[in-house]
Amino acid sequence: MDLASIIGIVVGVGFIIFGILSGGSLMLFFDVPSMLIVGGGTLGATLVNFPLGEVLGVVKIVKKAFLHTEESPIGVIDTLVSFAETARREGILSLEQKAMSLDDEFLKKGIGLAVDGTEPEYIKEIMNTEIEYISERHMVGAGIFDTMGAFAPAFGMIGTLIGLINMLAKMDDPSSIGPSMSIALITTLYGAFLANLIFIPIAGKLKARSASEVLLKDLCVEGIMSIQSGDNPRIVENKLKAFVSPSKRAITEEEEG
Amino acid sequence: MDLASIIGIVVGVGFIIFGILSGGSLMLFFDVPSMLIVGGGTLGATLVNFPLGEVLGVVKIVKKAFLHTEESPIGVIDTLVSFAETARREGILSLEQKAMSLDDEFLKKGIGLAVDGTEPEYIKEIMNTEIEYISERHMVGAGIFDTMGAFAPAFGMIGTLIGLINMLAKMDDPSSIGPSMSIALITTLYGAFLANLIFIPIAGKLKARSASEVLLKDLCVEGIMSIQSGDNPRIVENKLKAFVSPSKRAITEEEEG
Amino acid sequence: MDLASIIGIVVGVGFIIFGILSGGSLMLFFDVPSMLIVGGGTLGATLVNFPLGEVLGVVKIVKKAFLHTEESPIGVIDTLVSFAETARREGILSLEQKAMSLDDEFLKKGIGLAVDGTEPEYIKEIMNTEIEYISERHMVGAGIFDTMGAFAPAFGMIGTLIGLINMLAKMDDPSSIGPSMSIALITTLYGAFLANLIFIPIAGKLKARSASEVLLKDLCVEGIMSIQSGDNPRIVENKLKAFVSPSKRAITEEEEG
Amino acid sequence: MDLASIIGIVVGVGFIIFGILSGGSLMLFFDVPSMLIVGGGTLGATLVNFPLGEVLGVVKIVKKAFLHTEESPIGVIDTLVSFAETARREGILSLEQKAMSLDDEFLKKGIGLAVDGTEPEYIKEIMNTEIEYISERHMVGAGIFDTMGAFAPAFGMIGTLIGLINMLAKMDDPSSIGPSMSIALITTLYGAFLANLIFIPIAGKLKARSASEVLLKDLCVEGIMSIQSGDNPRIVENKLKAFVSPSKRAITEEEEG
Amino acid sequence: MDLASIIGIVVGVGFIIFGILSGGSLMLFFDVPSMLIVGGGTLGATLVNFPLGEVLGVVKIVKKAFLHTEESPIGVIDTLVSFAETARREGILSLEQKAMSLDDEFLKKGIGLAVDGTEPEYIKEIMNTEIEYISERHMVGAGIFDTMGAFAPAFGMIGTLIGLINMLAKMDDPSSIGPSMSIALITTLYGAFLANLIFIPIAGKLKARSASEVLLKDLCVEGIMSIQSGDNPRIVENKLKAFVSPSKRAITEEEEG
Repeated sequence: MDLASIIGIVVGVGFIIFGILSGGSLMLFFDVPSMLIVGGGTLGATLVNFPLGEVLGVVKIVKKAFLHTEESPIGVIDTLVSFAETARREGILSLEQKAMSLDDEFLKKGIGLAVDGTEPEYIKEIMNTEIEYISERHMVGAGIFDTMGAFAPAFGMIGTLIGLINMLAKMDDPSSIGPSMSIALITTLYGAFLANLIFIPIAGKLKARSASEVLLKDLCVEGIMSIQSGDNPRIVENKLKAFVSPSKRAITEEEEG
Repeated sequence: MDLASIIGIVVGVGFIIFGILSGGSLMLFFDVPSMLIVGGGTLGATLVNFPLGEVLGVVKIVKKAFLHTEESPIGVIDTLVSFAETARREGILSLEQKAMSLDDEFLKKGIGLAVDGTEPEYIKEIMNTEIEYISERHMVGAGIFDTMGAFAPAFGMIGTLIGLINMLAKMDDPSSIGPSMSIALITTLYGAFLANLIFIPIAGKLKARSASEVLLKDLCVEGIMSIQSGDNPRIVENKLKAFVSPSKRAITEEEEG
Repeated sequence: MDLASIIGIVVGVGFIIFGILSGGSLMLFFDVPSMLIVGGGTLGATLVNFPLGEVLGVVKIVKKAFLHTEESPIGVIDTLVSFAETARREGILSLEQKAMSLDDEFLKKGIGLAVDGTEPEYIKEIMNTEIEYISERHMVGAGIFDTMGAFAPAFGMIGTLIGLINMLAKMDDPSSIGPSMSIALITTLYGAFLANLIFIPIAGKLKARSASEVLLKDLCVEGIMSIQSGDNPRIVENKLKAFVSPSKRAITEEEEG
Repeated sequence: MDLASIIGIVVGVGFIIFGILSGGSLMLFFDVPSMLIVGGGTLGATLVNFPLGEVLGVVKIVKKAFLHTEESPIGVIDTLVSFAETARREGILSLEQKAMSLDDEFLKKGIGLAVDGTEPEYIKEIMNTEIEYISERHMVGAGIFDTMGAFAPAFGMIGTLIGLINMLAKMDDPSSIGPSMSIALITTLYGAFLANLIFIPIAGKLKARSASEVLLKDLCVEGIMSIQSGDNPRIVENKLKAFVSPSKRAITEEEEG
Repeated sequence: MDLASIIGIVVGVGFIIFGILSGGSLMLFFDVPSMLIVGGGTLGATLVNFPLGEVLGVVKIVKKAFLHTEESPIGVIDTLVSFAETARREGILSLEQKAMSLDDEFLKKGIGLAVDGTEPEYIKEIMNTEIEYISERHMVGAGIFDTMGAFAPAFGMIGTLIGLINMLAKMDDPSSIGPSMSIALITTLYGAFLANLIFIPIAGKLKARSASEVLLKDLCVEGIMSIQSGDNPRIVENKLKAFVSPSKRAITEEEEG
């Protein structure tokens, strides 16, 4: 479960509610028609903008991104270095058994190809094509949220314009101007809130998740190439550690020591 | 027929009409001069901005994008794998007959070149040039809608400025200020509506369509190359499956099983 | 003459004038000081922003882009295919005479180099350098208009701020507020009009023109390379047709048939 | 310690306080609920947008960027040229001792690899991978501040909308409109201030720091390659000086003379 | 001296002053606290955003860009062609003397390396690294002005917000609202003026200057490579002329004829 997102939404919503309560009542900010204009308009525009399959797939992407625990690069490096040791000691064929027990489908497939004696160029090509398309699919998810983050304030403004046009057209009772404008502005507030606390930050989190997943997969490819070419386990480790920050490397060295 | 776009427009327009009705009458939001300013200005700017041929071609592109049913990558992969099997069993020349019955002009041309024994390098070059120019032409279509999505709010604002200048110049009757401003704001609403529910989302859909068409064509090139080089059908399948998401792959495997 | 641009400006200006007349008088929207602030400010900023030679060169670029009729890619392909036939039948030297009669300096130079037996690598290098710099010079022209399209609304806003500051400082006569604000808003209108109906669309048209000119030149280079390497005219045609859209290709085939 | 940042913040805050005092009292601009809305909202959105580890890591990145004194490229060039001289005179193995005393871990590792006789291609690959990931991690830091610089004005606007909606809903006492709007606008001011004097400029400084650190590391790789291939120290110097501006080069030459 | 910039600033400022005078007095637009908020805030943010050395270096970059007369590419081509002739007639060593008398340090260094018989690959590498870093340093200068062009309007808005908050908090005397708002708006005007007539256009001019300087240097590298490989002077000329526009080429040919 992605803790930061939950804390973030709680913190953000909390302070905004606090801000509302410090000057008025929460009820003033709850308006069903306003919700429907902003929500419905954003949803409609999103459905026109993206293929239906991609919009429906978003739920799955979000669930995976927020509920799935990420593998640590250090763990993967350790696995790959131990594979390199086995391969050097007992030959690359001995990895077949070990690969079977892996959870990571991508790594399993790569090791399998290496064990089968597939040409390195071809393994690299297949795995990089797969990484490329994985990252493209992630970007589609992030793109949908970024687009929703652009549509929400636009439909917020559309709602406010509708409110203002209605109000101005029948400006006979001056005392009703205040409350009418107050309601007209609520859609703008909804749009800004949805965009800046929900849609844009979720798009950001999906991109960050994708980047770390791609890094992990790049690291796997590098490791498999290195193992297949019979590199010394120490060289394998050196090559792979370049992918992680020095502070994280230090931790492993301690762990290893 | 692209269902998502229809649902999207119905949902978007529906909620906006609901929003209007919940605070006033639909008639207030219907103003012919406002429509002509926003529509005419956007059309005029678009005609200056793009060659006439491209603007006229847009109708065709949109029709194709929204009415044409896309081929599924899985279907194309199946076709290519079956071709690979035939080519291995009976020689590549045996594909000539099969290619004849294909609907997809691009794939037919590629198989034709492979059967003729054209050099792989040359097939790849010709087909990639074609893909590049196809995608460039798609981007022109999406670019026109994106540009219209930028012009529409600008002409909406121009309309509002015209209304405000007219109103302020003869601000003798205070009771007319409200209704005048109400009408002045309608062009801004039209501009925002056109941009955010029509132009920008259609540009987005065209881009998504183009991306999936290019993916399909990349897949064809990869497959033809693989078939011509005499790859094992299983390897052809592996290479091509890297282009589609694991969830879709699973489906085929079931279907195949 | 570029018809679309003329139609576009007539349509755009027409509907805006219609919009003005439907609510007031044209005279209200004609204000010399406002014109001078927006026009002079935009011109001044443009002169600081670009070298004098580039700003002066813009007139020529615009004249060429709007008055010059473009060559059709199909015509160029026909010429190149006929050259390929001649070269195969009578040897490449026989092209010398034919090249002399060409209007297109770029193609003439390329054929000349090929006839002289210059190395293909070197021809390609010289011609691609030239294409690159041609396109860079086009982009300078488009860039000037894009920049003017950004400055014009800014100076429109500057003019409105000047008007508002003047008006607010001596807000003694309430009845003069309306007309003063009306005039203050005119510069914003001018800026938005210039940017969205003139500057930005002209920049767009220049980019489109440049793209089609570069495509034509790429096609020439490809053709010359193909002719020099002694390709079969049919292959030359196939290679070059990949540059144009299928619909246009169909037309040629009919014409040829 | 990064002097420019301190001067910058003092200058910026100083002039803004001066501006406030020249027209009113500082107390008017101090409002705790407004601070909490802008600060809490920005923090919340940032936590949703980035992985928790990255947000927490920002403190360290900022501390390093503002407190750590940068090495001068001239100093590094001098070191590398003296290493080149030693290597030519006494053989590359003689660098082992010298490398030990280096503070810079990156340079030490590179020299170590060169002394060990590792293949140049492999050294370059390892070091460039490391540079790439260092710069990626820097960019994450800058990205967090850039994102905060986008969220802060958004939550400033959200705060102002909340204030306006509250105020307009109970617009019974006209005399309270002024002060209420005054307070409503404070969040917009806070958002603009945080974005433009704190978040965006810090992101800029982090990028500049990263660029100069990457330049220094590129210079190290170039130098190590050159030393390992046995280049003349003068050539090493020439190659490395191309990385720094002529004015800085002149200084070294004087120093050296 | 860069004439266009002076004309541009005179024209821009002139028309704005004209606009001010046509509606009020210049004194209304002169407010020291407003200048200090916008100027001081922009300066402060710039100092936080960039390393001190880069901010201080800007003065030098601007002076060089506006006072230094550019070499003409045609002149450089003539020089290089004459060098090519000498090199072919009397051997490349004969260029040593001629290179000594060159003003252009970059060209002198390149010819020097060629005369010394340095390998072409190595000359190209050294000179391209230098071009890359020259252009990067130019971009830093342009980047500082672009950033100031973004900060100035932001601090203009901050100033206006401060003025509005002050004014609204003590809205007891309605007659003072006009003048107070008038003064509050002055900072926004200053910000827009500084950004659009000074900072952004200067950034543009620096980029244009950089582009033409890099073009000139690219041309030198191409020429030196061509001379060193013993190319015919006519071929040298052909290669280099591809860098300049046909209209400028025509001029040389006339001059040469």
